[in-house]
Order: sequence, then structure tokens, then C-alpha cells
Amino acid sequence: MEKPKAWIISVGNELLIGRTINTNAAWLGRKLTFLGFEVERIVTVPDNIEDIAEEVKRAVERAKIVITTGGLGPTYDDRTLEGVAKALSLELAVNDDALEMVRRFYNAKGLELTPHRVKMAMLPRGARPLKNPIGAAPGALLKVGGSMIISLPGVPSEMKAMFEAEVEPVLKEVAPRLEVVECTIRVHGVPESSLAPIIDKAHKASERVYIKSHPEGYETGNPIITIKALASAENKPKAIEEAMRSLKYIVDGARKLGASISEEGCS
Amino acid sequence: MEKPKAWIISVGNELLIGRTINTNAAWLGRKLTFLGFEVERIVTVPDNIEDIAEEVKRAVERAKIVITTGGLGPTYDDRTLEGVAKALSLELAVNDDALEMVRRFYNAKGLELTPHRVKMAMLPRGARPLKNPIGAAPGALLKVGGSMIISLPGVPSEMKAMFEAEVEPVLKEVAPRLEVVECTIRVHGVPESSLAPIIDKAHKASERVYIKSHPEGYETGNPIITIKALASAENKPKAIEEAMRSLKYIVDGARKLGASISEEGCS
Repeated sequence: MEKPKAWIISVGNELLIGRTINTNAAWLGRKLTFLGFEVERIVTVPDNIEDIAEEVKRAVERAKIVITTGGLGPTYDDRTLEGVAKALSLELAVNDDALEMVRRFYNAKGLELTPHRVKMAMLPRGARPLKNPIGAAPGALLKVGGSMIISLPGVPSEMKAMFEAEVEPVLKEVAPRLEVVECTIRVHGVPESSLAPIIDKAHKASERVYIKSHPEGYETGNPIITIKALASAENKPKAIEEAMRSLKYIVDGARKLGASISEEGCS
Repeated sequence: MEKPKAWIISVGNELLIGRTINTNAAWLGRKLTFLGFEVERIVTVPDNIEDIAEEVKRAVERAKIVITTGGLGPTYDDRTLEGVAKALSLELAVNDDALEMVRRFYNAKGLELTPHRVKMAMLPRGARPLKNPIGAAPGALLKVGGSMIISLPGVPSEMKAMFEAEVEPVLKEVAPRLEVVECTIRVHGVPESSLAPIIDKAHKASERVYIKSHPEGYETGNPIITIKALASAENKPKAIEEAMRSLKYIVDGARKLGASISEEGCS
């Protein structure tokens, strides 16, 4: 069964110049994977309408779920929704529901609407605003063709809160009914290059299990290889069974090479 | 003066499924920025020849410097150089110098070459191997047209060591003779949305300074906004002068709104 594809577009020069590490993309990648989607790209773009539009357009053509983070705030360089609108040839306009969210947020603090605050309520036409449980700027959810474009804030606490409250329930409805698990073993005492032929064979033996080895310590000397198997199936016991079958093959092969193994369980 | 563009391509399913946070891209983004390049994209792709080739091709068409990380090891899912070769319609072949590096690495530990170890010495034709000061797999540097494609390992310690020893000296030769500085102030007591019009004006006043505001704490209540100005010029004092001129405009405006300011210096 082919998993529906997801693309993540991270907007922000601070990510490109390395001022900020892109933890948002990793958090979303994990969420989407365990919801049953296949994350195919994470693309980081500058705060620039043309660049955002270029990547959103490409993503919509290829993915069922497109999630953008960042660029929803009140300043000149918050341009994500302009980029989304441009990518899809939609008009950007004040959304009444979004404006009400922004108005309420500021009124509660005794502050009026200003043009820069109203800007945060401008969405591509047809988009539904997503409530921001922490900050001022609403997110946006837009359906186009068979795809869904979801724009979330860049501040991690706001992004996570909005995703969990507003986005996850929607994605659960479109996600395949799959359980995804990841099981881990650690192989001590054998270099990754010696283990490589065995890992290759285990990988080729199952299309439904994704195996990846991560060398820790040193290739020679005292090598430790962490091996993770990601498997998906109709239910959790079946997914664990699939993952463990692949890992068992590696365990057996590694023991023959004189390795010692520690099993780290599944999650 | 237009800065030469750089693209970073991060290869690895572990990044897409959120098992690993992409710290390599941030580290490289910072390095490239301060060398005088403009990082225009960071693209994360699966361990898959077609996906790698697609993005490398796109990158080479648009950027002077393309850096890939990951996918150089001995296992089946280490496919970066196959992807690079495919993107550029080059043959992948054992490189004698690379093979000598790999052989020496293993011989020092009393280990022989195996097909999976020889695999690490297979480079796109015309590429120059880059010595790995820590691990087994060499990197690769390839010049095509006006672009340079540099493939580094995914293990952060190996990636950084190889970049600093083998890549930075080469990039310094092609980098523009620019000094880049980043100066920071923090504005206390004014919401970002109130400060937004002032930041906008400061931004428009100088094309050579890139300003970005990062809200900390809360938009209202006790707002703190970190504002960073990135400036480049022929020498460092001039770059600092440019950055501080933009920040001074914001400081003056913020003070009129009742904010207090702390200056955090330049780096």
C-alpha cells in the first residue's frame, strides 16, 4: 500500500543562515510519519514571495499534504500566505473569521487593530483560519484539488499547539489506517562496513520495512551500530512483527561475525 | 553586489521521519553565510537515487555552490554519489585516490577491502576525493560548468572536520571578499505588531542590511523582541556601521513607544 506523500516547507532566512536549527521540520516529520504519511521533502526557503510560491506550487503537484511553517506574523518579512496565494493564483483577502480571532486577541489586552495586525488576518481566498492557542497570528488550511495546504506559525510552541488542536484531527481523517512502529537494536563490536552486506539483504527481504543503520563511536576500534527498523501494518502487533523479523535477520548475521547485541525495544 | 548562491541538499530518511534533527544544515548555512554566500535553499531528500538526482540537477542550475550531506557510507541506502552522477549524466567509477584513502583506513586496523568498503571509493567521474579526517568514507568535490558540488558525510563530526580541512580553503578562494556581521538588540515592553511598521521602514531604508525580528515571551503581557541585523561590506567596521545604522532607527522608534532596549553586540 502506497502511503500518501507529505511535503514540509520551512519558511525563514534565519533557517538558511543557520541562526535557527529547524526543529519544527523534525517534529512535523515524526508526526506525519506516525500518522501514516510518507514525508518526501523538507524544503527551506527564504522570506520571499517568489521562492515560497515556487516551492508551494511544486509541492502541491506532488504531495497530498503540504505543511508550511513560519512567515505568518505582522512584519514585512512574514510572507508565507502571499506566497501560497501566488502559487495557486488566488487572491489574498481579509478573512472575517481570522480577523475576529486577531481582534479578540488584541482586545483582551486593550489593544486596537492596526494595519500590521489586520495583515495577520489576510488569507488566500477559500482558506479556513486555524486558531492560534498561544499567539496572535492564525494559521490557514486550504484545499486545492486533491491536496491540502496547511500554514502554521514558526514559533515552535505555537506551531505544535496549533498542529495538535487544529490539524491532527483533520489529518487523522485522511491518513491511511496504518500503525507505524520503529524498533531498535544496537550492534557492538563489528564495523558498519562488515555489517553492510547483511543489512542490505535484510532490507531487500521486505518492502514494508525501512531499515537504517547509524554508526556511533568509530568505524573500527570499538564500533557501535544503531539499527532502526520502521514498519507499518494494519495493526501494531503486526507492524512490530514485521520490524522484528528484519532485525532478527541482522541479529543472527551480526552474531556470526562475533558481535554482541542489545535490543532497545519498539516505539 | 549580488552574492553567489549556495544550496544545501541533506540526504537521509532519518531527517524526513524526524528521527534526526538537521543540525548539519544549520552549521553549513552559518559557515556559507559568513564566507559571503547567499544560502537560497536547504532541501532534504530521501535515500533514493532519483530524488537525489532531481534536487542536485535543480541546484546545479541555480547555485554556484551545492553541498550535499549524508549518504556516503557502505550500506545500500548510501546513494548520494550515485544520485550526483545521475544528475550530471556522469559515470560512477572507483577513484584510485579515494580507494587508497579507504584502503589505508582499514589496513591500519588490520582489515581488508570488501565490496562494501570499495563502494565508498566510487565517485562520479571527474570528482576529486576529499579526505575524511575521522571516518572511512571520503567526500567528493566536482566542478561542473560554473558550479561546484561538494559531497560531505552525514555524521556531524566527520562533516565538520572535512568541511574545515578540505572545503573551506577552496570556498574562500571563490567567495566574494566580503565581511559579514550580525548585530543584535532586544526590545522590551512593546508587542511585535506595534514595532512592525518601524521594522518595515528600517528594512526598506537599506538594501544591504537584512533585519529579522523574533518574538520571545508573549506578543502582549511582557513582550520581548530580539532584532538581528545581518550586514555585509568590504570590511568589518563598515559592515558593523551598516547594521548599527538600521538598528539605531529601530531603537529610536521603539523608545518613542515606551520600550526599553538592551544592545547585545555584534558577531
